[in-house]
Amino acid sequence: MREEFQSDLNEISRLLVTMAEAVRAAMRKATSALLHADLKAAESVIERDVEVDKIYSQVEAKVADTIARQAPVAGDLRMVITALHISADLERMGDLAEHVAKTAQRRHPSPAVPAELRPVFQGMAAVADRMAEQIASLLATPDAGKASKLEHTDDEMDNLERKLFAVMLDDDWPYGAETAIDGALLGRFYERYADHAVNVGEHLIYLITGEQTDGLS
Amino acid sequence: MREEFQSDLNEISRLLVTMAEAVRAAMRKATSALLHADLKAAESVIERDVEVDKIYSQVEAKVADTIARQAPVAGDLRMVITALHISADLERMGDLAEHVAKTAQRRHPSPAVPAELRPVFQGMAAVADRMAEQIASLLATPDAGKASKLEHTDDEMDNLERKLFAVMLDDDWPYGAETAIDGALLGRFYERYADHAVNVGEHLIYLITGEQTDGLS
Repeated sequence: MREEFQSDLNEISRLLVTMAEAVRAAMRKATSALLHADLKAAESVIERDVEVDKIYSQVEAKVADTIARQAPVAGDLRMVITALHISADLERMGDLAEHVAKTAQRRHPSPAVPAELRPVFQGMAAVADRMAEQIASLLATPDAGKASKLEHTDDEMDNLERKLFAVMLDDDWPYGAETAIDGALLGRFYERYADHAVNVGEHLIYLITGEQTDGLS
Repeated sequence: MREEFQSDLNEISRLLVTMAEAVRAAMRKATSALLHADLKAAESVIERDVEVDKIYSQVEAKVADTIARQAPVAGDLRMVITALHISADLERMGDLAEHVAKTAQRRHPSPAVPAELRPVFQGMAAVADRMAEQIASLLATPDAGKASKLEHTDDEMDNLERKLFAVMLDDDWPYGAETAIDGALLGRFYERYADHAVNVGEHLIYLITGEQTDGLS
């Protein structure tokens, strides 16, 4: 029984790692679509989001199956339920990458992001990518110390978002409302992506230490 | 055992109804804070979001406890796991009401919404309120037919969001980037609030009929 349960957990964990890698790849490609007005890249991200949704359903099914067959209690039960929360966060990260891709698609062949905002979006994308890489690695090899560092990385994202708004609200901002609206929404997509990565980290800390952080960002 | 399980489900359902009523009240008050630049109302919404988070934790604890004690399988297990998803959506609706309140707080004593956008935000708030009312009622008395209507109500929200953007992108739009950015983000908060209400409806349909809708909006 114990061995079977462990093998169920391993299977769930493998699915979560695959999901994390998929949403990392999605955001990388969406950023490339955004910064290079690359329509093909944008369409590919949009089409492939169903793959993430499919893995999400697989996690759900596997969790339900594990609970039904193994009737886990206490820490074991907590583990499988936490996997459910993690997969929901990952699923949402995939959606946010899709939102970035859709913005690139909508503005194509114009770039959705003007030259003045490119550096800040490059920065946001780099932070998002680092966070996604970290959670993929943490899901494969849980480590509470490393998981707690995700929140510091998220501070960088928040700083970049403030910088983004500062550029758009500067008196010299030469663009109109449309570019500002796109910029604000895109900024929010990256920032929410990072928030969900932090949530994944918090779920992992809870799994490892049993301690609930404030969470739910 | 069966009776105990039913009493567990009733308790979970009561918690979900309380949560739905709380996030409905939060968005009503946040809208009032937004449209009347009412700082006290904004602060009250922000302070009280912890209450929603508390009920969310209670649902999680009650679900874990129910699974551990009753070892439900098949449809019963599905029911308690779905309750978990519903509470996550409701928790997020509370956050979104808090975001609206924070925008009102940040711009106070100025109104965050200029006169030109008041009607569309009044419309969005009315739709949000109707949807929250419907899910509170559906959580108390599940009804797949009524739950499926939430998606149509959500179409009204999407139309209002398009209208919002049309006003801000009009050549006559007299305001700068800041007001457009606030408008776009506020629009997104109401629209996401409605999306989560639709999610709750889809979870309920799944509970009642066993049929998975496309979901995850």
